[in-house]
Amino acid sequence: MPGPGEFELIREYFGSRFNTGARQGSDAHTVALGIGDDCALLNPPAGKVLATSVDTLVAGVHFPAAEDPFRIACRALRVNLSDLAAMNAEPLWFTLALTLRDSDPQWLEPFARGLAQTANQYGITLVGGDTTKGPLSITIQVTGACEQPLRRDGAGAGDRVFVSNQLGAAAAALPLILREVDGSVTQMEQAYAAYHFPEPQFAVARAIGPYASAALDISDGFLGDLGHICEASGLGADLDLDNFPVAELARSMNGETALETALTGGDDYQLCFTLPEKHLQTVQKLQLPITAVGRMRAAAGIQCSLDGKPWQPGATGYRHF
Amino acid sequence: MPGPGEFELIREYFGSRFNTGARQGSDAHTVALGIGDDCALLNPPAGKVLATSVDTLVAGVHFPAAEDPFRIACRALRVNLSDLAAMNAEPLWFTLALTLRDSDPQWLEPFARGLAQTANQYGITLVGGDTTKGPLSITIQVTGACEQPLRRDGAGAGDRVFVSNQLGAAAAALPLILREVDGSVTQMEQAYAAYHFPEPQFAVARAIGPYASAALDISDGFLGDLGHICEASGLGADLDLDNFPVAELARSMNGETALETALTGGDDYQLCFTLPEKHLQTVQKLQLPITAVGRMRAAAGIQCSLDGKPWQPGATGYRHF
Repeated sequence: MPGPGEFELIREYFGSRFNTGARQGSDAHTVALGIGDDCALLNPPAGKVLATSVDTLVAGVHFPAAEDPFRIACRALRVNLSDLAAMNAEPLWFTLALTLRDSDPQWLEPFARGLAQTANQYGITLVGGDTTKGPLSITIQVTGACEQPLRRDGAGAGDRVFVSNQLGAAAAALPLILREVDGSVTQMEQAYAAYHFPEPQFAVARAIGPYASAALDISDGFLGDLGHICEASGLGADLDLDNFPVAELARSMNGETALETALTGGDDYQLCFTLPEKHLQTVQKLQLPITAVGRMRAAAGIQCSLDGKPWQPGATGYRHF
Repeated sequence: MPGPGEFELIREYFGSRFNTGARQGSDAHTVALGIGDDCALLNPPAGKVLATSVDTLVAGVHFPAAEDPFRIACRALRVNLSDLAAMNAEPLWFTLALTLRDSDPQWLEPFARGLAQTANQYGITLVGGDTTKGPLSITIQVTGACEQPLRRDGAGAGDRVFVSNQLGAAAAALPLILREVDGSVTQMEQAYAAYHFPEPQFAVARAIGPYASAALDISDGFLGDLGHICEASGLGADLDLDNFPVAELARSMNGETALETALTGGDDYQLCFTLPEKHLQTVQKLQLPITAVGRMRAAAGIQCSLDGKPWQPGATGYRHF
């Protein structure tokens, strides 16, 4: 069906809602020209390094095609913001490349609303985009500014390994969201919150920025992502799982295998970071929602212990939706 | 089929070929950290404004799915670079979000080769990306730096309207490329050059940058795109078509309707710009490949004349592949 053209689409659903372009708001000093020209024109903050990341979510792969568009938008932008948080960057601008089967207002309106709500919450401005016809997919590129970037290649042998908050909720949520299993109202609420509204860990990143030696966000599962820090830093790690922060939903849904869910489940977007011993006391005094789970070591590989005994998870990696 | 994972894919085909990340090359001062972390880290050139643009090409919509991947890559990046040229921005960085049905080396190798060749030719560095499984589509976001941005909202009444080089070749090429009609070897060569290797008009943009009042690249057809300048600048235009620069391929393929092809056909990526009368002599002395085709006026709408008589094209807009 011939819907409205590309230009009208962008203008109608995104132009007005996002206050794009030059304006009086908090981003007036960085956005010289927003949506509507060949390029957006942006003034980078002086003396800072820019951090940028792009992610694509494909219907039928990263989310069910029939999923609520409001939730899809919230999750898509939050997942991208998490990459900025993991770098200790403050959000500045983002672009949206949206491919749609047709220009259905019943889909676009809640999608744009979810995107705008999330953008406003995290102080990031939509500065450009492209709308094309085709199989539903969403590509978002976020850009932020940072003074103390947290890379994944800076860990040292002996550094403590930390994770933020709890892990395993998003993986435990998936069977509930897909209605493969039944759950209580509380479990469903926890599932939607964990899966659709992951919280980019800006506050934790900002607090640990001056002290941490390496960091990333846990998108593919803790063990795999810690493996990226190990590989990038040329190290291994010893983990003590006795106090590993397993999310309540993982415990209530998965019982005996909850620890494995927390170690290998993806989509939580919590931070994993390493901290040199000398900063341990300083960071502990900050009373952050973080747990020490192990220590980096020179020898490659990741060794786990539970109750003083070696322990191995039954599964690794993660399952896309 | 379970191909190599996302990380291996990116590393194997793009990491090595593009010299991504911190390095000794010409971009060492702007790229602090390339592919492989949560974000790329970039140092924007001091005192310049950044220009950024994103475009998605979907298989079956913007290019035939069976098209040669080398050519797809060249065209995808050139089309995006054209947005930088239209803004008078110099290329800095780009990201690639690639969605693929499977990780077929026979597709990826020539695609990566075409992308790398084009990136090196225009001096733009791949700094990040995402590879996802799904229906084939290519999203590229380019970023450049500019001192004298050429926006589309700066035209004044009385400004001359110019176009660069010739128009209509890409639209005339399409039936040849799709093998809907037969052509000579020369016509086929012209068709592939026009359609797959459009030239971002950096040299023209750089030369007119200090003088032009508005500019854009002609992607959707000259009349429609000039309409964007008119709309953004709150003006109309009078066009004299007697010397309109119609591409040779449009003449040889389309005969009597060649002028219409040049006026309404898309995908040429030539520049359309407006020039205040006071700069006319200065710019004419630069001997650029440009043609004056009309004049901006206060009253809205675009009026064309040919042989001294009012003229209207039979069709407007353009056809995706």
